[in-house]
Amino acid sequence: MIKTLRPRSYDEAIYIGHYFREGFAVVLDLTGLAPDDARSFVDFASGLVIGREGAMERVTPGVFVLHPPAGRTPTGTARPAVTSA
Amino acid sequence: MIKTLRPRSYDEAIYIGHYFREGFAVVLDLTGLAPDDARSFVDFASGLVIGREGAMERVTPGVFVLHPPAGRTPTGTARPAVTSA
Repeated sequence: MIKTLRPRSYDEAIYIGHYFREGFAVVLDLTGLAPDDARSFVDFASGLVIGREGAMERVTPGVFVLHPPAGRTPTGTARPAVTSA
Repeated sequence: MIKTLRPRSYDEAIYIGHYFREGFAVVLDLTGLAPDDARSFVDFASGLVIGREGAMERVTPGVFVLHPPAGRTPTGTARPAVTSA
């Protein structure tokens, strides 16, 4: 499943993390942001995909797709979460 | 276990991801970087810790600690990696 996000401020970065951790592919439209803010989102998204072993793809200037790791679905059925600490 | 990293360029961000994914706490010394580069590392590290449900702590200006999620050790024994896709 795919979630499209069009953040207006850096405070919204947490939502990208939320959906991506849930296993959604995230289409990230940064075209509404100033260049410095867009850069921050790209850096944040880079950390996110590296942290979860996903991938990031640039579609057009300011539009990116964050691909979740293979085998992970939004329901989590394909790769069960390990909840024990 | 703790790994201290003093990156000199943004190319080194991948190492932060590597050690953090392995379960190390990472002390990130950004004092050798220009402000714009340091900002990029902070954004990257924010994505990384959110992706893995860890935490980031600012120690002094330019020095941060990235805490891995609870229960994860560098050897991976406490929370085994799920390798099947």
